[in-house]
Amino acid sequence: MRHLLLAATAAVIAMPVAVSAQENVTNRIIDEGTNHSQVMPTVQHLTDVIGPRMTNSPAMRVAEKWTADKFSQWGLKNVHKEAFPFGRGWTIERSSVRMTTPRVVQLTAIPIAWTPATQGTLTAPVIVAPIEKERDFAKYRGQLRGKIVLITEPGTGDEPTTPDFKRLSGEDLSKLDQFQQPSYDPAANDRRLKRLDYAKKLDAFLTAEGAVAYATKSYRDGKLVTGEGSLFGVGETGALPGIQIAAEDYRRLARLAKTGAAPTLEIVSDVRFNDSDTNGYNIIAEIPGSDPKAGYVMAGAHLDSWVAADGAADNAAGSAMIMEAARILAATGVRPKRAIRFALWAGEEQGLLGSLAYVQKHLATRGAPNDPVASGGNAYYTWSNRWPVNPQPGYRDLAAYFNIDNGSGKLRGLYAENNPAVVPIFREWLAPFSAMGASTVVMRQTGGTDHVFMQQVGVPGFQFIQDPLDYFPRIHHTSVDTFDHLKAEDMRQGSIVLASVLLSAANADKPLPRKPVPTQPVVTDPYAYSQDDD
Amino acid sequence: MRHLLLAATAAVIAMPVAVSAQENVTNRIIDEGTNHSQVMPTVQHLTDVIGPRMTNSPAMRVAEKWTADKFSQWGLKNVHKEAFPFGRGWTIERSSVRMTTPRVVQLTAIPIAWTPATQGTLTAPVIVAPIEKERDFAKYRGQLRGKIVLITEPGTGDEPTTPDFKRLSGEDLSKLDQFQQPSYDPAANDRRLKRLDYAKKLDAFLTAEGAVAYATKSYRDGKLVTGEGSLFGVGETGALPGIQIAAEDYRRLARLAKTGAAPTLEIVSDVRFNDSDTNGYNIIAEIPGSDPKAGYVMAGAHLDSWVAADGAADNAAGSAMIMEAARILAATGVRPKRAIRFALWAGEEQGLLGSLAYVQKHLATRGAPNDPVASGGNAYYTWSNRWPVNPQPGYRDLAAYFNIDNGSGKLRGLYAENNPAVVPIFREWLAPFSAMGASTVVMRQTGGTDHVFMQQVGVPGFQFIQDPLDYFPRIHHTSVDTFDHLKAEDMRQGSIVLASVLLSAANADKPLPRKPVPTQPVVTDPYAYSQDDD
Repeated sequence: MRHLLLAATAAVIAMPVAVSAQENVTNRIIDEGTNHSQVMPTVQHLTDVIGPRMTNSPAMRVAEKWTADKFSQWGLKNVHKEAFPFGRGWTIERSSVRMTTPRVVQLTAIPIAWTPATQGTLTAPVIVAPIEKERDFAKYRGQLRGKIVLITEPGTGDEPTTPDFKRLSGEDLSKLDQFQQPSYDPAANDRRLKRLDYAKKLDAFLTAEGAVAYATKSYRDGKLVTGEGSLFGVGETGALPGIQIAAEDYRRLARLAKTGAAPTLEIVSDVRFNDSDTNGYNIIAEIPGSDPKAGYVMAGAHLDSWVAADGAADNAAGSAMIMEAARILAATGVRPKRAIRFALWAGEEQGLLGSLAYVQKHLATRGAPNDPVASGGNAYYTWSNRWPVNPQPGYRDLAAYFNIDNGSGKLRGLYAENNPAVVPIFREWLAPFSAMGASTVVMRQTGGTDHVFMQQVGVPGFQFIQDPLDYFPRIHHTSVDTFDHLKAEDMRQGSIVLASVLLSAANADKPLPRKPVPTQPVVTDPYAYSQDDD
Repeated sequence: MRHLLLAATAAVIAMPVAVSAQENVTNRIIDEGTNHSQVMPTVQHLTDVIGPRMTNSPAMRVAEKWTADKFSQWGLKNVHKEAFPFGRGWTIERSSVRMTTPRVVQLTAIPIAWTPATQGTLTAPVIVAPIEKERDFAKYRGQLRGKIVLITEPGTGDEPTTPDFKRLSGEDLSKLDQFQQPSYDPAANDRRLKRLDYAKKLDAFLTAEGAVAYATKSYRDGKLVTGEGSLFGVGETGALPGIQIAAEDYRRLARLAKTGAAPTLEIVSDVRFNDSDTNGYNIIAEIPGSDPKAGYVMAGAHLDSWVAADGAADNAAGSAMIMEAARILAATGVRPKRAIRFALWAGEEQGLLGSLAYVQKHLATRGAPNDPVASGGNAYYTWSNRWPVNPQPGYRDLAAYFNIDNGSGKLRGLYAENNPAVVPIFREWLAPFSAMGASTVVMRQTGGTDHVFMQQVGVPGFQFIQDPLDYFPRIHHTSVDTFDHLKAEDMRQGSIVLASVLLSAANADKPLPRKPVPTQPVVTDPYAYSQDDD
């Protein structure tokens, strides 16, 4: 109750007129977002009809056009796309992996993203050669010719003792209210870059040794596959076809190879590259503001996905909520003080590359003038560790950014991202949504998605707390990330809360309190250097 | 503690000499079952090397020979197979299902057992026509020509809020200690027979309407498939290829068909029938008894499986524990009073047909002399409702039967199957295994596997309580029923406990107390007739 009372009091004192208008508009938003909701048809089109949207794939091109058209049809303004250099388009046309000796089994497997096709049917024996680092190469030199190389340690079956599907309890929520001190390890980026480089070195090693293909084990049990791959850049494509095999099927191959003759696999990986346009594109749309000097607020979600299913929870759900919030606000005819900008990012799965491009273009650059350019996969790893941060002319125009990328679960509130000054403001904005379960504000900082590079340059970028549902245990990146596992009531609730928060932010008297422009931290933890994960 | 004290007291009073001998032999059994265990190599061979063992398939023939050979190598006596009429052999050579319009998706699907092949690639549009009963046929007459008919209601995604993997707590175990009054519904068998007949009528209807194939939805989410089918009899094979599609893929097809043009599927179902021998075979082996008049005790598990994976938890696990108990007892050189017989059943998945054949041959027949013969699929449904029960000469020879068919989980004790007289005896036998977690005896009656038809004629057939692990939530009959999800420590424990219980039963002064020979029950529940599930 305390938070609600505080919030109500603050609202009455701080901006009674705005709140009164807001009360009306809140009910208009709720009506539009429930009785006239379009969020499920939107997400159904993105997932069932368009399907997986790997950045620069033909389906992503369809999605870019379809979403931009929708924004225009709904009355959004300044609808446009913003290009950034990305890499190759890639799709799966057909794939089949069978074990043919010592017996016939149709396996569950998926081509690894951006690996080349098999050119028909490839048949060869496997060899189990767990290779995790460059230093493992020597162990297998001279043994790989003509083989399909199983490069993952087989391991054993899992024992899932927690439920796959979960909603956050009050206790769960309160655990999230933690200030976390930042940590800084200047060597981490170098280590990560080595890993990135490792994918190329691995392909080169296997190719030089005469291997004919390689296979990894899915990191999830239960026959789920993901098929993530990293060599998406032009000129980066490896020479060997790669497949990811379901854990159960992979381990069977490894056990058979250990107890008898090496099994034979028959692989068909009919995949296609498309290099007609190597730029990725962010889709941008706006509701104009009434005060051109007041800047803008923004919400975004990544439209791109992996390819093992339809990228539903990750992240057609977030994209559709962003689109629906835009539609709702456009339908209500609001004219906020600040403009409200909507972004559908590309290249998120390869390193937040679409939102990074936006940051570099509109908000801030990083590094000294003579630093090498950060681009493609390496941008993600190097960018955080470039100094100084150089604010660009638009740096202060973006008053607040809100990101959605944690599945289709109900919004439960906001992460304050270690910025205590925003907590009372967020509580006020969320107060009307207490009965929808969305009024919690917690201090915790979050990572892994498109607000991160904004936070890292001092722009107030936030994420919503969401009910996790079954996102991380089984949906995230997997072959079951389909429309089936989205929750319509949650998606409608999320669109409503997002629309209202954006409007509150756009009409607030002042822009949100910001953190200082970051400067290079002093390393305080001597143990940061002791980690050996290269 | 009460049970342990009781058991110890009973043991000392009832048969002090036998118990003293038993103590030595228990430690010999434990040594053989831990330090010299063969249960995991055995189950690995059955699953990884031999693979799925559908009754009468070529792999099941290999398994029959391999298990019989093992019994002989281990010194078991009277190793032989017992034939019963079954039906056709069937295997999957290759299968692929793709959606080709409105976009290309490689689906997760499996041919339905005993459906015919597609004869190359079959391409056709789908129609969603949920057909559950004969009376649904009329709705779709005239609409199915040239179509792949999706006959299951699509439904929506699941929300798994309980853990997949579980071990039984003390509280769980005590809940199982319930006497359940038997219920009797003479119309149930007729209704079930109609369902069996329905599979043939459905195929005939779809064929007459010009459909080209049919598809069902897997009853589990998460891309698990099972592929069960029922038309295994000679002369019963349907005309149409049938596939079971993963729930997520099936629902996508249904949604697309609802919101746009019907999607097109491309099906390759390269399956093979084998009619070289239409008999199924149970594998039998023995440790001879010292007293030819004392009869025998028996343990059994079904060796057959479904075909979506390797039939590991269902039921290579049980088969391997039976084999290992036989090996352990043979290795210890025991010469019990009663013979100990081991059975690996076939045809369990099609209606406990192997154990039923054993009952009919060795224990009891049912029905009046002029009743029609129960055979194949109908035997399962009609047999329980045939009167009178006619004990055969061997009826009283079988002193006790123990079945294992609940996955690879540790044995936690025994179900007394509504027979209070055996409870103190079982507690005594299990007392040495309290520290292995296996000393619980509960009253509950269990069903669904190969002790049932023995129980139904009054022969004391029992099942062990087992830790469920992830058997029912995700393993049972599915594409992840592989070696990976078996637990080696549990399998070793189970083999030891089983071997010891069998030896106790074989050496017991008296055969186990039996229930009366069943006579036709009086129907006491008028509501038994109100159920409409035809």
